[in-house]
Amino acid sequence: MQTAQQVYRSYGFVPIDTPVLEYFEILAGKGGEESDRQMYHFRDNGDRHVGMRFDLTVPLARFAAQHANELGMPFKRYHIAKVWRGERPQDGRYREFMQCDFDTVGTTSIVSDIETGLVINDLMQAIGFENFTIQVNNRKVLSGLLEKLELGQHSVAILRSLDKLTKIGRQEVAKEIQDNIGAAGEQVEAVLQLAEISGTNEQIIAAVEPLVAGNERGMTGLDELRQFNDAVVATCGPDHHFKIVVTVARGLDYYTGTIFETFLDDLPEIGSVCSGGRYDDLANLYTKQKLPGIGASLGLDRLLTAMQKLKMLPESRTSADVLIVFFDKDRVRDYLSIASKIRAAGIGVEFYPEAKKMGQQLKYADRRGFKAALIAGGNEFESGQVQIKWLAAKEQAEIVLSDDCQEIIEHLNERLSGQ
Amino acid sequence: MQTAQQVYRSYGFVPIDTPVLEYFEILAGKGGEESDRQMYHFRDNGDRHVGMRFDLTVPLARFAAQHANELGMPFKRYHIAKVWRGERPQDGRYREFMQCDFDTVGTTSIVSDIETGLVINDLMQAIGFENFTIQVNNRKVLSGLLEKLELGQHSVAILRSLDKLTKIGRQEVAKEIQDNIGAAGEQVEAVLQLAEISGTNEQIIAAVEPLVAGNERGMTGLDELRQFNDAVVATCGPDHHFKIVVTVARGLDYYTGTIFETFLDDLPEIGSVCSGGRYDDLANLYTKQKLPGIGASLGLDRLLTAMQKLKMLPESRTSADVLIVFFDKDRVRDYLSIASKIRAAGIGVEFYPEAKKMGQQLKYADRRGFKAALIAGGNEFESGQVQIKWLAAKEQAEIVLSDDCQEIIEHLNERLSGQ
Repeated sequence: MQTAQQVYRSYGFVPIDTPVLEYFEILAGKGGEESDRQMYHFRDNGDRHVGMRFDLTVPLARFAAQHANELGMPFKRYHIAKVWRGERPQDGRYREFMQCDFDTVGTTSIVSDIETGLVINDLMQAIGFENFTIQVNNRKVLSGLLEKLELGQHSVAILRSLDKLTKIGRQEVAKEIQDNIGAAGEQVEAVLQLAEISGTNEQIIAAVEPLVAGNERGMTGLDELRQFNDAVVATCGPDHHFKIVVTVARGLDYYTGTIFETFLDDLPEIGSVCSGGRYDDLANLYTKQKLPGIGASLGLDRLLTAMQKLKMLPESRTSADVLIVFFDKDRVRDYLSIASKIRAAGIGVEFYPEAKKMGQQLKYADRRGFKAALIAGGNEFESGQVQIKWLAAKEQAEIVLSDDCQEIIEHLNERLSGQ
Repeated sequence: MQTAQQVYRSYGFVPIDTPVLEYFEILAGKGGEESDRQMYHFRDNGDRHVGMRFDLTVPLARFAAQHANELGMPFKRYHIAKVWRGERPQDGRYREFMQCDFDTVGTTSIVSDIETGLVINDLMQAIGFENFTIQVNNRKVLSGLLEKLELGQHSVAILRSLDKLTKIGRQEVAKEIQDNIGAAGEQVEAVLQLAEISGTNEQIIAAVEPLVAGNERGMTGLDELRQFNDAVVATCGPDHHFKIVVTVARGLDYYTGTIFETFLDDLPEIGSVCSGGRYDDLANLYTKQKLPGIGASLGLDRLLTAMQKLKMLPESRTSADVLIVFFDKDRVRDYLSIASKIRAAGIGVEFYPEAKKMGQQLKYADRRGFKAALIAGGNEFESGQVQIKWLAAKEQAEIVLSDDCQEIIEHLNERLSGQ
């Protein structure tokens, strides 16, 4: 969450927070039937019908509609907060979970599409992933093709069939489309040609062009993909993580242009860990002012699962690096003063609160994952030295104890930065 | 919130999170009648009776009781999260608000009392306050005195009367205590003597001693106050922010030893902005294992109100320092690439997404509080220079545009660190 905040902020996104409880009528009907059924809602003590938010998009829409004039556009916000869905909890789906959204509202510029992609890219790298693929598509390409083929009204059914391409194969998909919507053979052939395009991003763009040529929407979508690709090559170099995949559609009808899904190359089965896209109008249910935008959502639960599997999470159960052992009851003030000086140098220190046996305190340090234990008893104080035990390395150093603890701080900084 | 996290972490406190929704029977009856009345609760889709937490202490008690053995003691946690109380919203009291708690559970050591005080002190300074007073007391002192006077069972009534000392004066308070509990004149006199003790911490400790002498509880409390005072003098120097106030009691019966209240010297009317204390047993309702501890809670809403009044909050409505003006439509890739390089150097940059008139973009930059605007059009790119406008100072600099943007980064770093 902190990494996400840093990345969002580095692009000028500002944090917002909205209440967990919204009036029921604000939330109802905004996320489809399933959301309504899963929503936690009740009458509060003042007999107001309220619900707990089930996503962060509806509250953003309500907020942006309400404050559009004061906010000024474009409005770039991020929101990291909990949402609730009363579904049956299962494999990686919880009733209460964190969402981590960012959106740029109030502009249709392709620059925001590019920037959204770059934010996803920076996020993944800042978290520590190296092998990931951000699949990019533009809804207008397929819509344009279907429009050109006069199949525009069947896009949902066709997408559903195309989704099975790898599972049931070309012939079965072609048959299904023909049966379901009564499309002609050449129409289905053109759709399948689009779906089967592969190669480098540049090859894909070249191969799509003849298929959508002559249709304005399709050509616009293609041009947006081209601008997107040019920009990420210019910004991230030729070995970037973006891959155009012309069949990526994302379930929601809501999206109208660029769309993103992000997969971990080492754990594709976990699904997309960061998805989003462009929408024509965020808040048409609350305001007449049109609020187009683009945004994406980082799937924190999936990411955590992945980081656990890939052993990317630190084992430590402390947030400080150094434990000061409580050895000599008459030296509490000295221990506290040493702790305070080390802390002022930016190093986290915990002072064990009880003068228990040294072995017990070192066991605690080990269990919690402290990196170092600082030990000083009567002898050490008299000789002006402390012992610093590096727990993992099982090494020990004798360091001069001066008034400002400078030698201790230098030793700690040196060893901690080297780890 | 980020400052609080940093301070908590520097002492080895670890973050925990617990669900907002708990079973109703976990929450009910734990915070007294008022909490029960104010709690939001309902039956969920699976007909489970659930409630929204009204504080972070009850969830900590449940969590610590459930996981006491795995956690290992002492357990130092912080928790920054929302709680709900369905009261009538008024002056600085909301139905939904943030709490920001830290606790050390599983030890009775005075070291944890001292550390809790030091954390409050570091918090206030890290947030940026200079004039504040952390009032410290120890419940055992007054309890001990009342025990010695055989008035132990009347402590609540006596505290209530003492609370009016500044309002109604010594005589009225004495009369009230005598009337209410039938105490003798000498008894009341001793209580009033304690309440009226003032001076430096050292003077107060010396003056309390004869009053509680002979009572074990009272002397223990006094000794703890003395140890506390010695330690903060040793750690923070003689000009520390801690002030012993023997009448500070805090409403809750819950506290049993050291107690804290923190006031802003410039805004005392706002009330305590960080309060807490020691308790004998956190989770006696959930487990037979005794979990003593000490903790405190930072009042974020009050602090924000205070920071607003004291003009300590930045006016800026952006989280990036630099806006890149979108001037030349053919240079999107260059702008993005410059932005990306500056960002990689740790400076936040927003690129305006539309090629609107320069005046409009600069107005946006002003309104949002950007510090600098970077301007480059065709001419600038050709001559290898960009303009950087410092908005508040109304100054402008021409900086060389090189491949790695090193000159721009240096200029920005220099100016930004100087502000």
